[in-house]
Amino acid sequence: MSFKKKGTGVTAPKGFRAGGIACGIKKSGALDLALLVSDVPASAAGTFTRNRFRASCVDHSERLARRGRARAVIVNSGNANAATGKQGKRDTAEMAKRAASAFDVPAGEVLVASTGVIGVPLPMAAVLAGIERLVERLDEAGGRRAARAIMTTDSVPKETSERRRLGGASVTVGGMAKGSGMIHPNMATMLAFITTDANVSAPVLRKILLGAVDDSFNAITVDGETSTNDMVLCLANGAAGGAAVLAGRDLDHFAGMLGEVCRDLAEKIVRDGEGASKFIRVVVTGAASVSAARRVARAVAVSPLVKTAVYGGDPNWGRIAAAAGNAGVAFRPENVSIRVGGVPIVRRGEGLGAAEREVARALRGKEIEIGVDLGAGKARASYFTCDLTHEYITINASYRT
Amino acid sequence: MSFKKKGTGVTAPKGFRAGGIACGIKKSGALDLALLVSDVPASAAGTFTRNRFRASCVDHSERLARRGRARAVIVNSGNANAATGKQGKRDTAEMAKRAASAFDVPAGEVLVASTGVIGVPLPMAAVLAGIERLVERLDEAGGRRAARAIMTTDSVPKETSERRRLGGASVTVGGMAKGSGMIHPNMATMLAFITTDANVSAPVLRKILLGAVDDSFNAITVDGETSTNDMVLCLANGAAGGAAVLAGRDLDHFAGMLGEVCRDLAEKIVRDGEGASKFIRVVVTGAASVSAARRVARAVAVSPLVKTAVYGGDPNWGRIAAAAGNAGVAFRPENVSIRVGGVPIVRRGEGLGAAEREVARALRGKEIEIGVDLGAGKARASYFTCDLTHEYITINASYRT
Repeated sequence: MSFKKKGTGVTAPKGFRAGGIACGIKKSGALDLALLVSDVPASAAGTFTRNRFRASCVDHSERLARRGRARAVIVNSGNANAATGKQGKRDTAEMAKRAASAFDVPAGEVLVASTGVIGVPLPMAAVLAGIERLVERLDEAGGRRAARAIMTTDSVPKETSERRRLGGASVTVGGMAKGSGMIHPNMATMLAFITTDANVSAPVLRKILLGAVDDSFNAITVDGETSTNDMVLCLANGAAGGAAVLAGRDLDHFAGMLGEVCRDLAEKIVRDGEGASKFIRVVVTGAASVSAARRVARAVAVSPLVKTAVYGGDPNWGRIAAAAGNAGVAFRPENVSIRVGGVPIVRRGEGLGAAEREVARALRGKEIEIGVDLGAGKARASYFTCDLTHEYITINASYRT
Repeated sequence: MSFKKKGTGVTAPKGFRAGGIACGIKKSGALDLALLVSDVPASAAGTFTRNRFRASCVDHSERLARRGRARAVIVNSGNANAATGKQGKRDTAEMAKRAASAFDVPAGEVLVASTGVIGVPLPMAAVLAGIERLVERLDEAGGRRAARAIMTTDSVPKETSERRRLGGASVTVGGMAKGSGMIHPNMATMLAFITTDANVSAPVLRKILLGAVDDSFNAITVDGETSTNDMVLCLANGAAGGAAVLAGRDLDHFAGMLGEVCRDLAEKIVRDGEGASKFIRVVVTGAASVSAARRVARAVAVSPLVKTAVYGGDPNWGRIAAAAGNAGVAFRPENVSIRVGGVPIVRRGEGLGAAEREVARALRGKEIEIGVDLGAGKARASYFTCDLTHEYITINASYRT
């Protein structure tokens, strides 16, 4: 009897193999090519950057995901293959084709993702040779290597998984993600790959995925930027067995698991924010609608002045109020209350000067919750971000040079 | 014959007196109260922050400016009198009243502006005593002292003026402004006061002012923030004599002068951006509409990644492309060309790798122009910003503490 290593992340669910190698894109010699394969055809769904400067891999994978069926995902890091014109498009197609022929599946079932520097053509000889080698090295415990191979400025690989009994079988949802700087809604320079052995149809999977992404990857921001290459892909291969297709309460539980995996990966991305020293959760309550709550939460979370105040431990709630007031959402300032670290600092539009020392103390922590109650309704929304530090400037002023 | 000092800034036009004193709001003892008075009732116009957390002085001055007639403007720095509830509202009214009674004019003709820390009540005893003292010290050369008294984090006072013959008289437009950090369209923590001795009706003045503000104060950004207290006010007192009311070509020339004064003040604000080391002009051409051009220019100008790349001298045009693609404006990436410092670095969607060294050289300058041609039409717009530096973080992490 052979001893089998337990898979993590995207290889936590049954029927998935993955791996990662250094094919030579990154001059540092770090892992830069990941491959993820389902043993059987899987339902596929995805969500993609809305940036007009989309890389060709985004067009490719969106087109394929729309068909709802995929077998494999090939991902390279170190080069975004974006703004590379027709050559870039051909290179994306060639990556899919080479992986497909190695597995003897249609090229139309291989999704492609790239991340890294923009405007430089992929070193295709290295990439294609890498794919050939990588195909030989996939295994059911390869999730961690794949998670490492998709990293760019990330300081740690990001994986997670959830498991529970559903429809008479043990169902697992796993995932990996990359992203640290430039993280923002609409998928900024952020890649996430979710796998599950649940049996879910592609249309249902798509609906559940979009909901999960709204409350996770679309609710994080490090610096307000969105990128050319971002995507979240999800494959469901049904290998868990059990009920033919999840439905009813089982389906709700499944949605909960997928949501948890997305939230966990999103939080890991924020915590790995470039140069971040503190994790910030902005919770807006009392809004007239969820979309109003989201807009206010986002305005506070992207504000460089709020983020530097948190970094500096300055109980400058005026910046929070000004950012909220700037969201383009109607509310009455005299109904607004603000808490920082659980401490009320504005009550019905007026500052509570006496609380500032207590807030300053709360700001010394590593996890800061900023609560804004608009006093305008019952809707709420959260946004996750990190502080803005000297280290952020250092990293981003010298990313390439 | 008495020798008269020549007025600068808001006292450059005839018939205006101004002054500034330290009334005791700022603990440093720096000037913190400015007063500007027209010898005769003047046409008045203004534009005001759209932040929901407006200070009461904004409501007050907007209401008065709508009537189109004013005599004086009282401005304090060091305290924004924002988020101070009903007391703040009473304090604003009291400031106007005290200045009005000193000049024996209706309180409804005294505009009020405040800037500084949010959420702390004004020290009214000091402010009111200061107004009494200040009234005695106004003079026709007081523009410079007033410009100094409205400063907060500004490192230099900001004044300018333009003069030319119009309608048979020598007409002058002068102005002063404050603002350095937190500058953004819709008037973020930015105050500007424009005076002119031209004879212009209030409705015409308003129309011309709004146009001038769109191309100047509304086209600058330092960090994407907007504030609670921002306003631009303009008084026209007709003291130059000449034609009863400007019209036709004279009016066009006047609009040009006012535009130039606004542009010059806006540029001075950007150049004094908190911790800025470089001045950046983003010029978007080939857009389908002016509003599309503005949105793209703004998206590039507010991008922290673009701003840190300029700071670091990194020819990372991918960040420019990604920011432009993120503006929510439709264009075809394969038609987009980008220049940095006059050097083409993207032609029709593809990077010109060979140009990167030349761009890196251009980025060593203190003035950087980023040109983005969308290839989608004939409209254009500019935006002005500065780089994002370590010094910015240092200043903003410790503004109050």
